[in-house]
Amino acid sequence: MVRWRPNAQSRLAQAALDLYEEQGFENTTVAEIAARAGLTERTFFRHFADKREVLFAGGEFQESIIAGVTGAPESASPIEAATAGLDAAGALLEDRHEFAIRRQRVIAASPDLREREVMKLAAVATALAGALRTRGVAEPAATLTGEVAMSVFRNAFERWVDQASAGDLRELIRESLNELRTLAGS
Amino acid sequence: MVRWRPNAQSRLAQAALDLYEEQGFENTTVAEIAARAGLTERTFFRHFADKREVLFAGGEFQESIIAGVTGAPESASPIEAATAGLDAAGALLEDRHEFAIRRQRVIAASPDLREREVMKLAAVATALAGALRTRGVAEPAATLTGEVAMSVFRNAFERWVDQASAGDLRELIRESLNELRTLAGS
Repeated sequence: MVRWRPNAQSRLAQAALDLYEEQGFENTTVAEIAARAGLTERTFFRHFADKREVLFAGGEFQESIIAGVTGAPESASPIEAATAGLDAAGALLEDRHEFAIRRQRVIAASPDLREREVMKLAAVATALAGALRTRGVAEPAATLTGEVAMSVFRNAFERWVDQASAGDLRELIRESLNELRTLAGS
Repeated sequence: MVRWRPNAQSRLAQAALDLYEEQGFENTTVAEIAARAGLTERTFFRHFADKREVLFAGGEFQESIIAGVTGAPESASPIEAATAGLDAAGALLEDRHEFAIRRQRVIAASPDLREREVMKLAAVATALAGALRTRGVAEPAATLTGEVAMSVFRNAFERWVDQASAGDLRELIRESLNELRTLAGS
């Protein structure tokens, strides 16, 4: 018996998304997701705490942001360092446009999933603020920058999943950042 | 039998806060809160859906923000209109400094309450964006401004409850707004 499959996580996410679209999030069980992916429930729970988590997979998103912030030049301002993080996340997601559109539609249809998304983005904002503090950014600037940067990201992401063509998510992030500069300066 | 008492809501909130401090949020029941306030469970549930909601009372906070946005001069920019909303909320809370400190300490100690707080603030940001759209602000600027304004508010509010003297919450909101202008412009 194969006990570890490197792509189990993404197979489970795909299976979950298919089932949530076909029959709704509320009506889908973990057993069904595991069966659709050809895996056991035990394997599901090795990767995800529950059937909401399967759409917020693996910490990859947060890790890419933190890596981008950490790798920004020392001379970068707090918002520039945060933007380097968003840019890294944009690069990670860029070839998953169709998946992102389907996923966002499923999330929008479920209050449970919308709540989980809000909590996830808040946690990423907190982690981003932590990465800024590591760079020497003081509070309260670090927390404010973390939250504002995640608002910029969400703004860009929503436009990205609203458009039919994949376009350039990183370009949309830059546009949202310009919106922020305009609104803050007016 | 008195079926309606105009101050039932604030008595329940006070009783809940006392009990959450004395014995913890998790260990407190709705029956205990109602008894401490000298009211029935039925009255509790007429005002609040559950024992988390009792600390996020009444919609007053959101209403004050929306009223501030709606009442801002026609010439106000989106962020100026949003700031008028935050200012109105600051005026509402200003004489409740001690309650706010105690409440924030209880929220910080409970993951359930922290989650509810994040969701409440997200809902207020959404309502604020709606009030901006009513003023003619287009998307995605309205949503971005709503979220950023609530980050500014939270930033000011956290500093307010961290300080021993009541100080001036509205002054802290102006300082946070200046932080935002600085970070966005750098």
